[in-house]
Amino acid sequence: MKLKTIAFDADDTLWMNETIYTTTHGRFVAILEKYEEPDVLQKRLYETEIKNLNLFGYGVKGFTLSMIETAVELTKGQITGDEVHQIVALGKDMLTHPVELLPHVEQTLKLLQESYNLMIITKGDLFDQETKIARSGLADYFGGVEILSEKNTATYQRLLQRNNIEVSDFLMVGNSLKSDILPIGELGASAVHIPFHTTWGHEMVSPENMLHVQYEVLQHIGELPDRLPYIFPSRQMEGMMADL
Amino acid sequence: MKLKTIAFDADDTLWMNETIYTTTHGRFVAILEKYEEPDVLQKRLYETEIKNLNLFGYGVKGFTLSMIETAVELTKGQITGDEVHQIVALGKDMLTHPVELLPHVEQTLKLLQESYNLMIITKGDLFDQETKIARSGLADYFGGVEILSEKNTATYQRLLQRNNIEVSDFLMVGNSLKSDILPIGELGASAVHIPFHTTWGHEMVSPENMLHVQYEVLQHIGELPDRLPYIFPSRQMEGMMADL
Repeated sequence: MKLKTIAFDADDTLWMNETIYTTTHGRFVAILEKYEEPDVLQKRLYETEIKNLNLFGYGVKGFTLSMIETAVELTKGQITGDEVHQIVALGKDMLTHPVELLPHVEQTLKLLQESYNLMIITKGDLFDQETKIARSGLADYFGGVEILSEKNTATYQRLLQRNNIEVSDFLMVGNSLKSDILPIGELGASAVHIPFHTTWGHEMVSPENMLHVQYEVLQHIGELPDRLPYIFPSRQMEGMMADL
Repeated sequence: MKLKTIAFDADDTLWMNETIYTTTHGRFVAILEKYEEPDVLQKRLYETEIKNLNLFGYGVKGFTLSMIETAVELTKGQITGDEVHQIVALGKDMLTHPVELLPHVEQTLKLLQESYNLMIITKGDLFDQETKIARSGLADYFGGVEILSEKNTATYQRLLQRNNIEVSDFLMVGNSLKSDILPIGELGASAVHIPFHTTWGHEMVSPENMLHVQYEVLQHIGELPDRLPYIFPSRQMEGMMADL
């Protein structure tokens, strides 16, 4: 047990993402509220998203198609071409939205890269995620970037094998209990949960599912360097306990 | 120089793809020909696709959004909700289209996997490509699958390094001069071109760009095993020349 690789989720762990979806939901409702109640629009959009996940996967392009599908259905085809155009524009705005780093991210990565191999492990749309990593300005801190279509025990296991990473030397850091913590716990690796204030319904996990999984919870990523001696006590004793 | 790894492009090399786009173009025109001339629809759709590539990347979802954008613009917003719905359905049909293997693919892979490490190197939408590989029934022939957002000299070079593959031991097989042959030639690796009868305009390369690149052209993938002794003469002499 010797911590070598720390992997970070990207959306809502390194930079804001869910807030862009929340804002877009609001703008979607504003376009269509003349046709239908906001609650109905939101509920139906979520249902359409989930129904389309097995066709579209995660990401903005599939979400935009789901917005269009929801809009046509809920307006019973009364939606105008101009309104469809506005929804396409919502999707394009999401794709070009500035990448806003969360607090403490850059200084934490800078510190940790001196001692560890850092990775990004994210899920979603390949092109969109690559673009965001490039625009974030963080790419040089990471020795590897892995973009998965789904994060589960099997995909993490293949990823660790492919990169010759031992489960016992690996720490995953992320905001999603479902995607970043639960499958890592099932593999027997270490995980740190840093909750983001907003979580997409699809990423929710009921508390009883988390009972058998051990993980550390931090308020923000800046707490990570000081907490590492407690998460990986055996190896950290030498170097980092000196600071305490 | 000892051939170890043969990598195959997927779309239009292992299975049909461009034909699905061509068919969808026809259905798109059929939906909208009451508003605009087929030639104008086709031309504008292509222009919108290319304009949106830097936002959407390659793949069906981005193409579907480009169809919707083109339809709204060319109908000057007169398009109906029902017609928008039909275009979304075109995209969904593409994503669920059966994967039709090209002739000789399966028996060729079966033969080659006995002597070489086989890979898929494809570009496009991560989720859609993974789904197609799974549905193709070919996954077990391949030791590795790499899905890139773009195929160029830099992305191939990183991929070979990451997989510890020597340029001199590597052969790329594909249908696109632009994505599968030109960048491989620039790296100094070997390439085999197997033209598909239809090529997307964006993948076209002018002949003078190919003048300095050496590559072999085959009629179909089934010719590959017998041609390998000529492409990699030094090592193949022993085993395979016996057949001649």
